Amino acid sequence: MTYCVAMSLKQGLVFVSDTRTNAGMDHISVFRKLYRFSVGHERTIVLQAAGNLATTQSVIAELKEGIAKGAKKNLYNVSTMFEAAELVGETIRNVISRDTCELTKNVALGCSILVGGYIEGDDARLLDVYSEGNFISATIDTPYFQIGETKYGKPILDRIITFDTSLEDALKCTLVSFDSTIKSNLSVGYPLDLLVIDKVNKIEYYKRIKGTDPYPVMIRNTWGDGLKKVFHELDEFIFDDTPLTDADDGILM
Amino acid sequence: MTYCVAMSLKQGLVFVSDTRTNAGMDHISVFRKLYRFSVGHERTIVLQAAGNLATTQSVIAELKEGIAKGAKKNLYNVSTMFEAAELVGETIRNVISRDTCELTKNVALGCSILVGGYIEGDDARLLDVYSEGNFISATIDTPYFQIGETKYGKPILDRIITFDTSLEDALKCTLVSFDSTIKSNLSVGYPLDLLVIDKVNKIEYYKRIKGTDPYPVMIRNTWGDGLKKVFHELDEFIFDDTPLTDADDGILM
Repeated sequence: MTYCVAMSLKQGLVFVSDTRTNAGMDHISVFRKLYRFSVGHERTIVLQAAGNLATTQSVIAELKEGIAKGAKKNLYNVSTMFEAAELVGETIRNVISRDTCELTKNVALGCSILVGGYIEGDDARLLDVYSEGNFISATIDTPYFQIGETKYGKPILDRIITFDTSLEDALKCTLVSFDSTIKSNLSVGYPLDLLVIDKVNKIEYYKRIKGTDPYPVMIRNTWGDGLKKVFHELDEFIFDDTPLTDADDGILM
Repeated sequence: MTYCVAMSLKQGLVFVSDTRTNAGMDHISVFRKLYRFSVGHERTIVLQAAGNLATTQSVIAELKEGIAKGAKKNLYNVSTMFEAAELVGETIRNVISRDTCELTKNVALGCSILVGGYIEGDDARLLDVYSEGNFISATIDTPYFQIGETKYGKPILDRIITFDTSLEDALKCTLVSFDSTIKSNLSVGYPLDLLVIDKVNKIEYYKRIKGTDPYPVMIRNTWGDGLKKVFHELDEFIFDDTPLTDADDGILM
């Protein structure tokens, strides 16, 4: 499995992806799922991929080949993020239709790809491209997308993230979301790829962090302890009714 | 969907179930998913059901009919919790095989049922009965089970619950787990059915709580605020590397 989060906020974009892939429990590997296509300050397009690894690697390879061969439409010449998402969707459809045959009829070939970034003359944008090649765009109301193993880490994002959240808080919240996911699910794992596009200051940062790096260790300890503290401060639930008696036998059958 | 949690702890057993069922987004109903079969202080067997509602209701109906008709093996005469789980598993298999036909070939008939409680002369136990009728038992290492929409509320259980957790903390933690799940997923909803079996004092409590009751409202506010406070106290992640430059174009392709 995989876990990727991307956000399109007032101040910029935040992308975090894990790197674990597994084909069964005994075939665990590290593969990058975050890709950046950039041309100076003219464009940066970030892709994050979840789903069938053969499909997503083919899609990325096709997109790179399109650039190398100067295809009529490639990630270096599309003029909007919308067109970039269209191209990614088209490429997903081509790869899946190439690989669909009698042999793969019981294989889940699907994937989803987050496409975020900016192209000069267009707004910074974040889009979620589905396996079918169609896509939706993040908005002020819903400024973040998750793909892969999304549920464990969703509650904290739902509580903290709004369009106005600072890039620092967004990144921190995303790392807490990854911490919860990694604690509860073996198929998501460190290292993580972090990429931030600061729209205001026109600066981009990238870093790969390991689970043993100081920051994830700090989150693991401090967040866990903090949660426990808040938990123990909550009032207990008191049953205000009398206990069940023999007369209640059968009432909940 | 559904969300049910059950725990088998040193001091006793805790069961919480939601009551929302949905067949599509526009067909939402309230159905109880927690059932209690009790005979004085001799036995209490609690069932919690997730999955196809037609299947789970049939299973419960069959189990009740077994008691009413004095079947050779029914929930009032099995002598261990293991036998109770076997009976539930057998009943699931019978119902699913009854309903499997050409018309239901594209319908998910499956269900899972948590079976917990005590029978005089046997230890208190908690078992998770799968759709296939086989089952596993909770242990000191893994004292809780979840069925239904399990992922959103798992991180907090993973952090707090151990076999030695008090019944009060276990119930509180379960209600926090439901709060997170209900906040992030429309298919799980109030009211909740709570049932606690205090093994030490041989007392049982049951209550149905609504989302507008003081306790859930308190958790919603206090827990959310507490999380935000802990979150804002965490250090920010600082990129210690220099920002990306034109020289980095292509390094993450």
